[in-house]
Amino acid sequence: MVKPIALTLGEPAGIGPDITIAAWLRRKNDAVPPFYLLGDSAFIAARAKLLGLDLPLLDLSLAEVGQKDLSQIFNEALPIVATGHPATAHPGHPDDNSAPAAIGSIRHAVNDVVAGHAGAVVTNPIAKSVLYRAGFAHPGHTEFLAELAATNSNAPQPVMLLWSPDLAVVPVTIHLPLRDAITMLSSRMIVDTVRIVVADLRSRFGITSPRIAVSGLNPHAGEDGSLGTEDQTIVAPAVAILRAEAIDVKGPLPADTMFHEAARRTYDCAICMYHDQALIPVKTLAFDRAVNVTLGLPFIRTSPDHGTAFDIAGTGRADPSSLIAALSLAARMAASTRSA
Amino acid sequence: MVKPIALTLGEPAGIGPDITIAAWLRRKNDAVPPFYLLGDSAFIAARAKLLGLDLPLLDLSLAEVGQKDLSQIFNEALPIVATGHPATAHPGHPDDNSAPAAIGSIRHAVNDVVAGHAGAVVTNPIAKSVLYRAGFAHPGHTEFLAELAATNSNAPQPVMLLWSPDLAVVPVTIHLPLRDAITMLSSRMIVDTVRIVVADLRSRFGITSPRIAVSGLNPHAGEDGSLGTEDQTIVAPAVAILRAEAIDVKGPLPADTMFHEAARRTYDCAICMYHDQALIPVKTLAFDRAVNVTLGLPFIRTSPDHGTAFDIAGTGRADPSSLIAALSLAARMAASTRSA
Repeated sequence: MVKPIALTLGEPAGIGPDITIAAWLRRKNDAVPPFYLLGDSAFIAARAKLLGLDLPLLDLSLAEVGQKDLSQIFNEALPIVATGHPATAHPGHPDDNSAPAAIGSIRHAVNDVVAGHAGAVVTNPIAKSVLYRAGFAHPGHTEFLAELAATNSNAPQPVMLLWSPDLAVVPVTIHLPLRDAITMLSSRMIVDTVRIVVADLRSRFGITSPRIAVSGLNPHAGEDGSLGTEDQTIVAPAVAILRAEAIDVKGPLPADTMFHEAARRTYDCAICMYHDQALIPVKTLAFDRAVNVTLGLPFIRTSPDHGTAFDIAGTGRADPSSLIAALSLAARMAASTRSA
Repeated sequence: MVKPIALTLGEPAGIGPDITIAAWLRRKNDAVPPFYLLGDSAFIAARAKLLGLDLPLLDLSLAEVGQKDLSQIFNEALPIVATGHPATAHPGHPDDNSAPAAIGSIRHAVNDVVAGHAGAVVTNPIAKSVLYRAGFAHPGHTEFLAELAATNSNAPQPVMLLWSPDLAVVPVTIHLPLRDAITMLSSRMIVDTVRIVVADLRSRFGITSPRIAVSGLNPHAGEDGSLGTEDQTIVAPAVAILRAEAIDVKGPLPADTMFHEAARRTYDCAICMYHDQALIPVKTLAFDRAVNVTLGLPFIRTSPDHGTAFDIAGTGRADPSSLIAALSLAARMAASTRSA
């Protein structure tokens, strides 16, 4: 029995409910793998009505998720498991229930995947500012998931991978001012990141010998030091350490010439030194189809690569492509993990 | 009479001679506009022989360039104008004559275009290290051209534009360590750059009301200051100054979401804050077809967007696509300039 995917509600005032409904409606055309939503069926029914859609829903209990084969059920109705936190927000307008509903959904999804009832977690977009106002103390979604996954003996180090059919990239530094990203970059961060990427490409993507390409920080990867020294003092030593571990890694490579089609065929994942260096090429090539994958967790987690889009929530204009890609990739990763 | 393009020799030991010969041989298939090479016909004949190619050459004098219609001549033979600096280098091995031959060719090309005998200058790649050893004192090709174009009353400020059929980008800072690029970035540099870009898009590209998109420096364009302050203190004020001049400009935009297909349709040129931010998207999309254009000069100058490739010079493996794109764009710019 293939385990279903646990899909979180995300920010109820955003487009999460819209794209969840749209993804389910496209389940046959787009071969969307079976999933269930951790949410509130009355709220989803109301959003479907607002969108003018006829949506069959099936209420499940938490206990039923691990017992029933959802594949058949999913063909007939969108399965919803109540989390005990009702959602009430109107599209574009988060309310007092937004934070508990979003956070409760994430907690339950992690519980399900850790208990073995779900094959993966896919998260809908949250609005960090809304959660912060309610006392949420994590920098973001990913850090919260890492804490939920932590045990006494193991504190997961999450790594963000942006995946698309054309290119997979991992930024070593992420949400930092560019100036601070340069200052904080270290050989250790690069080494730790690549080790996690290689382990997860093996165990979750079925790539036996992952080929890794590491970008340089500076233009032309520093051009032998004339355009900056960090490529010689930070990036190159990290690559040397990784090569000594028999990892198939090359770099530092000039970032501008490593993302064209012929170059992309030479590696499985590009490791980049900062946010835009990684995200510019993947979003240029695959804007609607990019999936955010969190590596380094004890379970599979993907999410669509966009935000809550408050301005189009409830209008029917939200595009479910990235959510569908996230669900499909999560199912593929779960299958690779099972057969590993 | 359409003026021919003056093509420089570039580094004689590099692939410049190879791609020049290949571009002429493809003149009919690829509709290559008429050009003449400022070089040394005996040297080019020897390279053609090495490549196993039968190449008709026609020696012209400098005086003849301004008098004859080269269109017909170009159909029959590759026109070559001697510069008085013979080239002798073997492929991959620059010799003592490399620097004078390369520099002399550039000087003559600028003379021809300034005198009105040529419609544009297209430059083959040079090897800066070779020129430096011979006492060349300019940071690069572009700065040398700017000095040659300078008059008592006007010191041109050259601006590098990377052009491709899919995307045109201009980096505000270029060949600097990334750390220094952040430190040096100023509102003034952004304003000056955009003014030159807008003027040249009007006069040389026939775009009456150029639409300009300016990237942010930091991830998410700084996200209201939480990911860096420069977008608020440096980029946004520059955009405000430009808008006050009735220039159609928007920004600072998050760099990762400004280069996908739908986004690209909303502007004519993207202005980026540093080298990789500009060059990653254009080389990802159009690696072989990108053209380097120097704006802000009193004449049209383009060049292929690659280097001397010493390792494949003389082998027949060099791809003339970028040179052909540079010649074609130069001809298009010359036509737009004439009709402006």
